[in-house]
Amino acid sequence: MALALEGIRVVEVTTMAAGPMAARLLADWGADVIHVEHPGTGDPWRTWLKKPDGSLFDNEVNYHYWENHNRNKRSITIDIAHDKGREILYKLIERADVFLTNRRPYELKRFKLEYETLRQMNPKLIYGSVTGFGRNGPDSDAPGHDTVAFWARSGFVYLLQQHGAPPPSPGYRTVAAGDNVSGLALACGVLLALFVRDRTGLGQEIDVSLLHTGIFALVPVAMALSTIDKSFVSTAEYEKFIRRERDEVSPLFVSYETKDGRWLQLSLAPPDPYWSGFCKALGKQDLEGDPRFSTLEARIQNQSALFQILEDVFRTKTLVEWRSRLNDTGMLWSPIQSPKEVVADPQARANDVFVRFDHPSFGRLEVVSNPIKLSKTPATIRMPAPEFGQHTEEVLLELGYTWEEIGQFKQEGIVA
Amino acid sequence: MALALEGIRVVEVTTMAAGPMAARLLADWGADVIHVEHPGTGDPWRTWLKKPDGSLFDNEVNYHYWENHNRNKRSITIDIAHDKGREILYKLIERADVFLTNRRPYELKRFKLEYETLRQMNPKLIYGSVTGFGRNGPDSDAPGHDTVAFWARSGFVYLLQQHGAPPPSPGYRTVAAGDNVSGLALACGVLLALFVRDRTGLGQEIDVSLLHTGIFALVPVAMALSTIDKSFVSTAEYEKFIRRERDEVSPLFVSYETKDGRWLQLSLAPPDPYWSGFCKALGKQDLEGDPRFSTLEARIQNQSALFQILEDVFRTKTLVEWRSRLNDTGMLWSPIQSPKEVVADPQARANDVFVRFDHPSFGRLEVVSNPIKLSKTPATIRMPAPEFGQHTEEVLLELGYTWEEIGQFKQEGIVA
Repeated sequence: MALALEGIRVVEVTTMAAGPMAARLLADWGADVIHVEHPGTGDPWRTWLKKPDGSLFDNEVNYHYWENHNRNKRSITIDIAHDKGREILYKLIERADVFLTNRRPYELKRFKLEYETLRQMNPKLIYGSVTGFGRNGPDSDAPGHDTVAFWARSGFVYLLQQHGAPPPSPGYRTVAAGDNVSGLALACGVLLALFVRDRTGLGQEIDVSLLHTGIFALVPVAMALSTIDKSFVSTAEYEKFIRRERDEVSPLFVSYETKDGRWLQLSLAPPDPYWSGFCKALGKQDLEGDPRFSTLEARIQNQSALFQILEDVFRTKTLVEWRSRLNDTGMLWSPIQSPKEVVADPQARANDVFVRFDHPSFGRLEVVSNPIKLSKTPATIRMPAPEFGQHTEEVLLELGYTWEEIGQFKQEGIVA
Repeated sequence: MALALEGIRVVEVTTMAAGPMAARLLADWGADVIHVEHPGTGDPWRTWLKKPDGSLFDNEVNYHYWENHNRNKRSITIDIAHDKGREILYKLIERADVFLTNRRPYELKRFKLEYETLRQMNPKLIYGSVTGFGRNGPDSDAPGHDTVAFWARSGFVYLLQQHGAPPPSPGYRTVAAGDNVSGLALACGVLLALFVRDRTGLGQEIDVSLLHTGIFALVPVAMALSTIDKSFVSTAEYEKFIRRERDEVSPLFVSYETKDGRWLQLSLAPPDPYWSGFCKALGKQDLEGDPRFSTLEARIQNQSALFQILEDVFRTKTLVEWRSRLNDTGMLWSPIQSPKEVVADPQARANDVFVRFDHPSFGRLEVVSNPIKLSKTPATIRMPAPEFGQHTEEVLLELGYTWEEIGQFKQEGIVA
C-alpha cells in the first residue's frame, strides 16, 4: 500500500514534545523526516524521565518518551549556532518540503531561521512553528511548557480543580499531553499547506501555539466571551456555575465511588432515554416511578436527594459488578481507567490502538499507534526512533559532502 | 487572499461536538460545509446549555455551543430515515468531496450510509468517521461522549485525580474539550486524504475515535506498554509513581497557593538555569547557596524541605505581586487562569486568539479563532452559524429540485 506522504521531505529543528510529535505524525504517514539535534546535548527528551531519586530508569528502550515522539525519523547532529553548521542546515532546507521548529522567536532570529530568511532559499517551503504562547505579545519569547501554556494559562487547570483540593497536576501526570495535541494541530496545518501548495504552488508559514490550542478546546472560554454571564449576578456566581461540584449538577452526569474504592463516570445525557434502564441497572426499579425522580423536571428539583441515593447505591457493589449491570442495560458510562488498564482494554485492542513492531536492537516492542486511520494510505511503522546522530553521515553524504569534509566537521564539533 | 479549501464540498451527518468541530475547521479554511440536521429535533447542540433549574439561558446567541461549532456552515434539514430523504442526501454526497459523520456503526448501517455504499455513488469521496470507542470491538456501537471515551476510559481522569478528592469532572466543566481535540484529528485526516486524492485520484475512509485520540495524547499510557514497570516492585508502586502528589515530585514543577487564595503553576525544568533567578524572585537569596538546595542532587534529596519552604513563601504574597517577580526573573510559570481571565489575557489578545465578526442579527460578536494559522490562506469567518434549516431551500434548488418538489417534501415531513 502506498504511503500518503511518500516523497515529502521534512526537516525539524525541535526538542522535546510538540514539534517532534507534529513531525512524527507526518513520518507515520511516510514523510522522510530528519530530526536535527545538538551535537553536544541531543534532544533532552531522550533521557527525560527519571526515578524519584533523579537516576535514569534502566529500561532498555525509552519508548514512552523518545520512541513515542521520534519513530520513523532519521537523526542528524548539527551545531546550528556555528556558521558551517548552519550552512549544512540550509542545504537540508533547500531541498525540503517542510521545515518545523518549536524554537522561540528570539532564537529563530539568532540562528537565522526565520521564515523570511528560509523562503529566500526555498520559496515553496512550508514553514511550521509551534510556540508556547504565540509569536506576538509580551510573552512571545517566554519558554512555554505544556504545563503552563496549554494547561494552566488556557483555563484547563482552573476548570479541572476540585473544591478543597490542590489543582490537578498536568506537569508530571499527563506529561506532554498538551504538546501532543498542539503537535496534532501543527501537523494539520502542514497538511493543509501541502494541499494548497500542490494546487497553487504557494509555500507559506504556519503558526500554532500551545495556549491557542488549549483555548480552542475549551468551550467555557468561548462562553466567557458571550453574553451568557449577564444571566449571573456576579463574576463569582458565574465562576461557581462553571466549576459546579459533583453534587450541584445532574447526578446522571458525574462520577461515583464503588465498593472497592474505584470510580466510574456516568454520562447519561440527554437522560430520558436512559432513566428506565438505569434504575434497572441499579436494582432500584422503585426509583423509576418515584414522583421525585420520574421526570427530568422532577429530577432537577430533587437532584441532591438523587445524588445521595446514587452515592450510597454505587458503594454497595464493586466495579466489576457494576460493569456488567451498566453494560447490560446500555448505559453511557466508563470505568475511570488507569494506564495499565487502558493498555489491557479489549476495546482499545480491538481497534489496534496498540501496535507491535520489531525493533532491530530490542526485539518486539509495543507502542501507541497513529490515532488517524486512513484505509488506503495508512500510517505505518517502518523504523524505530533513531539513535543519537545515527544518520549524520548518511544525510551528509546525500547532501553531497565527502567523507573528508565530514571528518573535518567532526573535528570542529559541528557534527557529532 | 485565497481560501485554502475553496471549492471543496463537505456534507456532515453529525450532531453535537466532535464531528461538527472537524467540519467547522474545514469550513474556517473555506470549504462549503452543509450540516444535515433532523427536521424534527435539529442538532441538540443548539440548545444544550441549561441553567441549574433546567431552563435555557436567555442570551441572544448560543455561541459557546452552536456558534462555536457551526460558523461558516450552511444548514439543511433532511429526515434520513425516510427513503426520499436519503435520496436527497445521496444527491448531496454524489457531488461532495468529503462526507463526515459521528453516527455509530449500527446507525450507519440502518441509514445506508456506510462507506461501501457511498463509494459506489462517488468513488473519489473522502469519508471521515469519528466514534466514541472505534468501529471494532465489543463497544463499537456504544454511545460515547467525550466524558467517558476521551477522558475516563483513556486514563486522563485517573491521572488528573488528586489524592483524597473525587475525580475531576470533564463532563460539565471542560465540556466537549475531548470532542474538539478528536475533531481536530478527524480534520487532519481529511486534509491528508485530500492531499493524497489530488496526487493519486484515490478516495478513502478515515477512522478516528475519542478513545484513541485520548490515548494518543497520554505518554503515561505509552509508558504502561513499556518495560519501565519492571523497575517497580508492584503495580501499586508503579501507579503511585505515575500519580505522585505535589509533595512527592520536584518542588519546582508544581502549583502553589498565593496569599489571596489563587494558584500558580511552576514548570522550572530543567531546573538549573532557573535556580538562581527563582531564589531572587522569591526574595530568598539565602536558598541559592544553601547546601541543602544548591545543586540538583541536593534538591532531590531535600525536596520535602524545599516544598514546605516554597508553600510558606508563596502564601506571603498575592498573585499580582508574584506575577511581576516571576516575570522579571524570566521564570517558566503561569497563573492558573479562569476562563474570564483567559479572554482578557493580553498575550492571547496579541495573538488574535479571539476575533470579532459582525453577526447579521446580533451585531458584533467575539469568538475563539481557528488555532492553526496559515500566512497566505488563513482561516476566515464569512458566515455565522446557520439558523435551523436556514439553507434547506437554497441547497435543494442547487440540487435541481423545483419549488413544487420542495413543497411536497415539506408536506411529507422529509424537510422542515
